[in-house]
Amino acid sequence: MTTAQTSEKVQQWTNLAQQLRIDSIRCTTAAGSGHPTSSMSAADLMAVLMTDYLHYDFDNPKHPNNDHLIFSKGHASPLLYSMYKAAGAITDDELMTLRKFGSRLEGHPTPVLPWVDVATGSLGQGLPIGVGIALAGKYLDKLPYKVWVLLGDSETAEGSIWEAFEHASFYKLDNMIAILDCNRLGQRGPTMLQWDTSAYEARAKAFGWHTIVIDGHNYEEINRAYAEAVQVTNVPTLIIARTVKGKGVSFLEDVGGWHGKALSSDKEEKALEELATSSRSKVYTVQKPEDKQPVRLPEGQPIELPTYEVNKDKVATRKAYGDALKALGEAVPQLVALDGEVSNSTYAEEFAKAFPNRYFEQYIAEQQMIAAAVGLSVRGYIPFASTFAAFLTRAYDFIRMAAISRANIRLCGSHAGVSIGEDGPSQMALEDLAMMRAVFGSTVLYPCDPNQTAQLAAEMTKHDGVVYMRTTRAALPTIYAPDETFSVGGSKVLRESDADQVAVIAAGITVHEALQAYDQLRSEGITIRVIDAYSVKPIDNETVLAASQAVGKIITVEDHWPEGGLGDAVTEVFTQSVGQFPQIAKLAVHSMPGSGTPAELIEDAGISAHHIVLAVKAMLNRL
Amino acid sequence: MTTAQTSEKVQQWTNLAQQLRIDSIRCTTAAGSGHPTSSMSAADLMAVLMTDYLHYDFDNPKHPNNDHLIFSKGHASPLLYSMYKAAGAITDDELMTLRKFGSRLEGHPTPVLPWVDVATGSLGQGLPIGVGIALAGKYLDKLPYKVWVLLGDSETAEGSIWEAFEHASFYKLDNMIAILDCNRLGQRGPTMLQWDTSAYEARAKAFGWHTIVIDGHNYEEINRAYAEAVQVTNVPTLIIARTVKGKGVSFLEDVGGWHGKALSSDKEEKALEELATSSRSKVYTVQKPEDKQPVRLPEGQPIELPTYEVNKDKVATRKAYGDALKALGEAVPQLVALDGEVSNSTYAEEFAKAFPNRYFEQYIAEQQMIAAAVGLSVRGYIPFASTFAAFLTRAYDFIRMAAISRANIRLCGSHAGVSIGEDGPSQMALEDLAMMRAVFGSTVLYPCDPNQTAQLAAEMTKHDGVVYMRTTRAALPTIYAPDETFSVGGSKVLRESDADQVAVIAAGITVHEALQAYDQLRSEGITIRVIDAYSVKPIDNETVLAASQAVGKIITVEDHWPEGGLGDAVTEVFTQSVGQFPQIAKLAVHSMPGSGTPAELIEDAGISAHHIVLAVKAMLNRL
Repeated sequence: MTTAQTSEKVQQWTNLAQQLRIDSIRCTTAAGSGHPTSSMSAADLMAVLMTDYLHYDFDNPKHPNNDHLIFSKGHASPLLYSMYKAAGAITDDELMTLRKFGSRLEGHPTPVLPWVDVATGSLGQGLPIGVGIALAGKYLDKLPYKVWVLLGDSETAEGSIWEAFEHASFYKLDNMIAILDCNRLGQRGPTMLQWDTSAYEARAKAFGWHTIVIDGHNYEEINRAYAEAVQVTNVPTLIIARTVKGKGVSFLEDVGGWHGKALSSDKEEKALEELATSSRSKVYTVQKPEDKQPVRLPEGQPIELPTYEVNKDKVATRKAYGDALKALGEAVPQLVALDGEVSNSTYAEEFAKAFPNRYFEQYIAEQQMIAAAVGLSVRGYIPFASTFAAFLTRAYDFIRMAAISRANIRLCGSHAGVSIGEDGPSQMALEDLAMMRAVFGSTVLYPCDPNQTAQLAAEMTKHDGVVYMRTTRAALPTIYAPDETFSVGGSKVLRESDADQVAVIAAGITVHEALQAYDQLRSEGITIRVIDAYSVKPIDNETVLAASQAVGKIITVEDHWPEGGLGDAVTEVFTQSVGQFPQIAKLAVHSMPGSGTPAELIEDAGISAHHIVLAVKAMLNRL
Repeated sequence: MTTAQTSEKVQQWTNLAQQLRIDSIRCTTAAGSGHPTSSMSAADLMAVLMTDYLHYDFDNPKHPNNDHLIFSKGHASPLLYSMYKAAGAITDDELMTLRKFGSRLEGHPTPVLPWVDVATGSLGQGLPIGVGIALAGKYLDKLPYKVWVLLGDSETAEGSIWEAFEHASFYKLDNMIAILDCNRLGQRGPTMLQWDTSAYEARAKAFGWHTIVIDGHNYEEINRAYAEAVQVTNVPTLIIARTVKGKGVSFLEDVGGWHGKALSSDKEEKALEELATSSRSKVYTVQKPEDKQPVRLPEGQPIELPTYEVNKDKVATRKAYGDALKALGEAVPQLVALDGEVSNSTYAEEFAKAFPNRYFEQYIAEQQMIAAAVGLSVRGYIPFASTFAAFLTRAYDFIRMAAISRANIRLCGSHAGVSIGEDGPSQMALEDLAMMRAVFGSTVLYPCDPNQTAQLAAEMTKHDGVVYMRTTRAALPTIYAPDETFSVGGSKVLRESDADQVAVIAAGITVHEALQAYDQLRSEGITIRVIDAYSVKPIDNETVLAASQAVGKIITVEDHWPEGGLGDAVTEVFTQSVGQFPQIAKLAVHSMPGSGTPAELIEDAGISAHHIVLAVKAMLNRL
């Protein structure tokens, strides 16, 4: 650029940045809450990005070659929304609806807005999700779009940020450019590193990133940084921008106590005087993306699920999951898989071996794994992510946020419950059903045999939202024929007669305990109904209500803590129906397990066939 | 040391390391499962540590000046247990009970063993917990004990490890020495960094640690590294030891496919031949700690809780929590507090200002916060850790493991539910009750007014395990007198008569909605019972059953998803009792909230007074 061009550019960036600051203040003051000062520190960075580096068609947010811009520091939403206004995507009137009931402009960005890929606001999530999008860009779509992530400095305290750093460099994500808005001040005081940009630089470099340190309010430095970043190959880039919180308004600049506070209207007036600009509502041109299309996927083949022979094959549901995933890989070209370095335990390795280009090893970084799945789902892929069910607890915040992101992700947690045996409680998921049920719009499946697992894995590809399957370590008998069908919201009545005295509702491994209890009780002249509630959420209301009406006595049995699992799913049915509850007893794991054989631990937990028999007799007063 | 002394030392270390390897193989082969190869890589490191650097009285595991040794790579438990045998703490017979039902030697270490501080086995937790212990050592106990942490290389992929790295250097924890067993192989293949010790070194240095890179099988290098590490001041030390998985047995060394596998008895025989040593059951001397005592705590003062005036003071329960925490700080000298950089929102800042030396800022690193609380509880402190309730989901794996550690930690989650208003769903905890109820042995409290909050905060100090309090953002009316008492497992019947037609069970903010509904219904000639179930777990069975018997119709109402919260806690009562359930309906948040005023969102969620009135009338068929 000539000096004159540069000077013209600088004037344009200045005008835009001032407009973004003004709008960030105006909309938060109108709302009476929000984060103007955290928006103001990054306004210059975003002004240059928007006019000169971002490629985005705001009229076509689904354009396959659009760049992705993620505000990992989601509380700077006023800045993001002000950019939308400056790009002509929303009106000033809509901007002023910020944080109001019914507005698309929520306190933190969500995909209710068509230009927002994912919800942020729980810090440390935007960058790892960006990794997922960048994986898609580089390895699947093979499109030149960039993933721009605006990072806060406070959020670099989150370990998940460093999971993203290590994965982005491991996978050579040169399509990823993160911009660290290093404004020194967190919510309640200075950050750990304050303005020590060299410390940030050393960390990012040590994690394999290219780094550029700049003054985040110097337009020429910002411009040069972006120009350099887009040329970098083979490694991701971090632009470390030293900035001032509240930049542009004398009484807000680098002053504590202003985090997350809107200005009163008199302070707003003073601030806007300082931020004077030629126009407050200018619309700026954003460059359109090139008209490229992603790599075309092959045609899907008809689904040929693995099958297992009834009363013969003993197969763990985790193995059947792996077999099915591989089969689904043939049938569903959008399907991709991720695992947390335990793919030989979850059997995701079956898919990984068959489709190495559609498998992304996430190592022992469960937060990054869920985030990558969310990112891949943003690009339209159908991600299946697996690890031990116990370790999905590591990523609960990411799963919770995935629901707010309206992401479509499929999760499989293996090694559920005390029935894993010798490894002990740290490896046993005993809270996963509770955790997954309490996710908005989630589906929770818990198969008990390999044919059922395969069928339900196929069902998972068809259901949106967070869809979870719980699998078991131990080999289990095949009790369903390969042509039996299973559906989300369904169940199977395995034993039934007009003489049923108690209905036992089980799922997963306890189905087999219930069947054993049935045999023993029948030999003693007591008939029970046995229901396999493989769809824990949604539960099969109709079958549960029918059992209640016909039998009036229900026992639930689950390899899970008593709280929030199958038992609660069953009682839930009756809080939605008119009329009385039946008598219900719940068998669940009531004490802290240790090591032992699966059989010993199932017995000790009080969820064995033996305990079911005792509970049935107790309910019938026949002990 | 003279050359002769060194050579004698090396012989001793060799013998001990071989014994540790032999025992790691023997006990896992006897168990039929476990992790011999991950134990063998670290055997040399632990042999030198045990005989020459560790200060520990195995006869007195509660000695206040004992060093702490944490196996963050908990799957190397065979090595740890073999060390216990070599120290004479357990017999060979007991070692051979590894992983058997009823044995103290579980698959992964737990504090069932008196020498184990905390459960590990979920990777990436030992180091952050060590940070908590080291904080206690340096800032509270002021004792010279060291915190030694054996780290696996795979687990450095966990972000929580980097949270620990940043906090350990920020707090200048020179009493902390981590030993990275860099054996290159994870469970299913190579780690991301394999043997790139310089990459580990660069990362640790960038995070402010002193680093020493060694060959982890060269005794002199190991010895020199420890000698150097114990002298380092002001910063923590990481010893990066390049090791070989399965070291010592030719057919196991650096061979894939051996992770987590016990040797068959014929392979065991071959291995033991290679590991020949003069004695297989020698007992080695471990140095005793100096006889120092921790800083003596002041006498606790009588508790003087803050009080609030009924029908006058409108105070958020989060503010009352802060006020109470400060008051409890005076009364309970062991009480310490932590917060995730939101202390001006949770009001933990009240305590921080009053007791800056007993407050540990954890920045935006919730996993580290919970881990530090666990570590502080190991040293006998009473930690209260707070953040937004939504962000406790970030640390669910740590909370789950805290229960397995039998840790005594108190957690406070603020900003629960849609009632926070404008900030939107990313900041709203709507699953925290489900998550916390499904923690073994947990207590879950949810106060609705400031006096109740203060009383319950005082109760929290007296209850072991994971004790959780959920607080609310909005100011709420004071409805209880300051002398009213509340207990874990209790409830309050706020409105009651012989004519009650429905019992409404609420907690926290919905108590106020229920009271409004009461007034409106009474004006229409319908009387309801209103119960404040502030103890969500354990729930007050007696009062719930009494309401069921007297009224027969129950409506629960909560600012939480329908799954796993108050409604499920209430239905739980009836699964434990003989006899029929009453009619129960559950009001909870049924759709994804956005932004809005608290009143708008409570109404929209279907949990307002208005919706309670409708639900009561529906249940009475009077709509």
